[in-house]
Amino acid sequence: MEQHARTDAYTDRYAARAAGMVPSEIRALFAVVSRPEIVSLAGGAPYVSALPLDIVGDMIGDLVAGRGAEVLQYGSAQGDAELRERICEVMALEGIRASAEDVVVTVGAQQALDLITKIFIDPGDVILAEAPSYVGALGTFASYQADVVHVPLDEGGLIPAALRETLDRLAREGRRVKFLYTVPTFQNPAGVTLTAARRSQILEICAEHDVLIIEDNPYGLLDGDPMRAMRADDPERVIYLGSFSKTIASGLRVGWVLAPHAVRAKLVLAAESATLCPSNFSQLAVREYLNTQPWREQIKNFRELYRERRDAMLDALETQMPGGCTWTRPAGGFFVWLTLPEGLDSKAMAPRAIAERVAYVPGTGFYADGSGRRQMRLSYCFPEPHRIREGVRRLAGVVEQEIRLRDTFGGAGSSIPNGVEAPGPHVV
Amino acid sequence: MEQHARTDAYTDRYAARAAGMVPSEIRALFAVVSRPEIVSLAGGAPYVSALPLDIVGDMIGDLVAGRGAEVLQYGSAQGDAELRERICEVMALEGIRASAEDVVVTVGAQQALDLITKIFIDPGDVILAEAPSYVGALGTFASYQADVVHVPLDEGGLIPAALRETLDRLAREGRRVKFLYTVPTFQNPAGVTLTAARRSQILEICAEHDVLIIEDNPYGLLDGDPMRAMRADDPERVIYLGSFSKTIASGLRVGWVLAPHAVRAKLVLAAESATLCPSNFSQLAVREYLNTQPWREQIKNFRELYRERRDAMLDALETQMPGGCTWTRPAGGFFVWLTLPEGLDSKAMAPRAIAERVAYVPGTGFYADGSGRRQMRLSYCFPEPHRIREGVRRLAGVVEQEIRLRDTFGGAGSSIPNGVEAPGPHVV
Repeated sequence: MEQHARTDAYTDRYAARAAGMVPSEIRALFAVVSRPEIVSLAGGAPYVSALPLDIVGDMIGDLVAGRGAEVLQYGSAQGDAELRERICEVMALEGIRASAEDVVVTVGAQQALDLITKIFIDPGDVILAEAPSYVGALGTFASYQADVVHVPLDEGGLIPAALRETLDRLAREGRRVKFLYTVPTFQNPAGVTLTAARRSQILEICAEHDVLIIEDNPYGLLDGDPMRAMRADDPERVIYLGSFSKTIASGLRVGWVLAPHAVRAKLVLAAESATLCPSNFSQLAVREYLNTQPWREQIKNFRELYRERRDAMLDALETQMPGGCTWTRPAGGFFVWLTLPEGLDSKAMAPRAIAERVAYVPGTGFYADGSGRRQMRLSYCFPEPHRIREGVRRLAGVVEQEIRLRDTFGGAGSSIPNGVEAPGPHVV
Repeated sequence: MEQHARTDAYTDRYAARAAGMVPSEIRALFAVVSRPEIVSLAGGAPYVSALPLDIVGDMIGDLVAGRGAEVLQYGSAQGDAELRERICEVMALEGIRASAEDVVVTVGAQQALDLITKIFIDPGDVILAEAPSYVGALGTFASYQADVVHVPLDEGGLIPAALRETLDRLAREGRRVKFLYTVPTFQNPAGVTLTAARRSQILEICAEHDVLIIEDNPYGLLDGDPMRAMRADDPERVIYLGSFSKTIASGLRVGWVLAPHAVRAKLVLAAESATLCPSNFSQLAVREYLNTQPWREQIKNFRELYRERRDAMLDALETQMPGGCTWTRPAGGFFVWLTLPEGLDSKAMAPRAIAERVAYVPGTGFYADGSGRRQMRLSYCFPEPHRIREGVRRLAGVVEQEIRLRDTFGGAGSSIPNGVEAPGPHVV
């Protein structure tokens, strides 16, 4: 009782925004997915073991021994100047022309999301996001009390007509839309890519409604012939987020944001108050890697590795999954988005799937409005192809059993409660 | 004009809290202090070159080559479990008994400050802080629209009677005090240490008024016989912040927060939405260093190095500074806090000091209320002793000239405008 009283005492002290920070019911499930007997199709961890670890180790060891006074010291809040130059060269592969002055290095692109939300969002402001959308972004938006309004996507990405309709409706309602958040290439979780034609249309619609665009592009360079970034065509409207998590290594936590000059200045101040400066240790490791290692070839290796895994997953889904299931066919990236037959519930099914030694992320985490009960995200980035096939085989068995249960006891769908659900960014 | 109009357009989009994020007038000055001809007594950068860089480089190279799959991968939002065990052992040196379950690893202690402020502070909530207080904390508090109320300190640290008086007054005014923020040991910027007797008194006063305490202790282990932490005597009231920036290396950006269990849970959720997880690359480097290197001996080396520099500074001040100046005599840490004679203004004097090739941080940055015009922070952590002596010699010359100007043209003090001033955490 004493303990309970203390807990209540803290609750009374929290800021209003803390009410939006609640652990997910499915968190406990994820504690077990690292067990070797479980095939996890849940996490979004890149396969960093594909890096030449001996060579990278030597490179970093030499860097610390030779330039430790810089590598181990505080840096500037905006990030290392030379690294920002390299980042501009990386972005040039997507048609972006930018000055290193307008780049801010962040603790992963996640921090960029946090800082952008912090400087733009007052409680109740509207953010538009794809339906479904990246779970980590939804968590950040909730932590600043944003009101997320979803806009549907299909195999060609965000649907322009739906965006226009939503913006018109919100304008009629007199609601302020601060920005559109989108992952245009190899979307997380849907795996789809926004077509070039739609990119132009969406830029146009957002210009008409004077809405900023946050273009989050962690997977773009995993395309052999990278799509032209939206930022390339509207430097004043688009704030671009990039990351080395998928092209080098996620454990370094180095991402960046490219923003219009005035916004960049605010972001640097926000970054200072959040973390003082990004780690020089990580930043200079990335800088050295880009300066001395064949990074383009390594990205090609990653791309081929993930393509093989994607093919394994799509093939296994095709041959194993029972009728009534549908799924996206991504051209690249990490994820397939699967829709279960009517009457099935991916969240209710999750514990049974884990009992059968396969894990996925239920779809509800990717919506701010309680949708996604019939959906799930399947990732193919980390397990090896034979494990992916085995995982899909197990999953198909679970789904078949659920279908039998549904047919025996009637549709479970009607009894599913609504509610916002965020599993938290541990699933990336 | 077009450019100007766009800038205004962004301004209109920002959140209310962004209004508190403004660059300091003295920022431009700091751009030049890294020039070799200038003796900088401004920065708070530790002297990381004192580390055995070859050995540390080898250690890290081997770590990446041997355990790259873990080192370069995402980790948990709370931080590496084994590192959290080591952190508990470090805190035990200050009398703290804690479970690794209640530790959250952060991107430097700065992120801990940010997360604590985010979960506790609604706009207008009161935070108590020493006068003067750590500039980086004031920036974070401002970014969440806190109302900072200062409580004076003297050579024995925060003054208990003044704390009680302030709390009584705020209670009469019906204002909610969320927490007291304090750097009890080798305070930044004042250099003073809170006495053991006062620690008990302050715990008692805060218990009476039911106010939480944020104990920020980056310098504590630089004491040969570390003071008992306030957290050691009240685990439910005190949230403790620690950092490896001064005991290992600042460029790793590894700090932590130890909080009551319920608060810890909120902090993990806030950390996830802010940066997903701290860098495994940095965390496992720290873990390996603590596991394999003589870290206690290295701290002793740092301590002796800083003591020599402190003695150089105190000796130079004693012999060089003109009458009318007073300063603190720190038992350890990085900083001396100097008060100029009446009528002098440390901020107005800063450009003239830089012209004479010496830099310091004007006192105004360490107050949220425009105080500190006669004060300055002098750091002795980074320059070598002979440079410190030379810097103080130059500074003394500048002050002498200011005194002559004052005596010729009358007190400049009366013409000094008031106003909040935050130089930003680039001065740490």
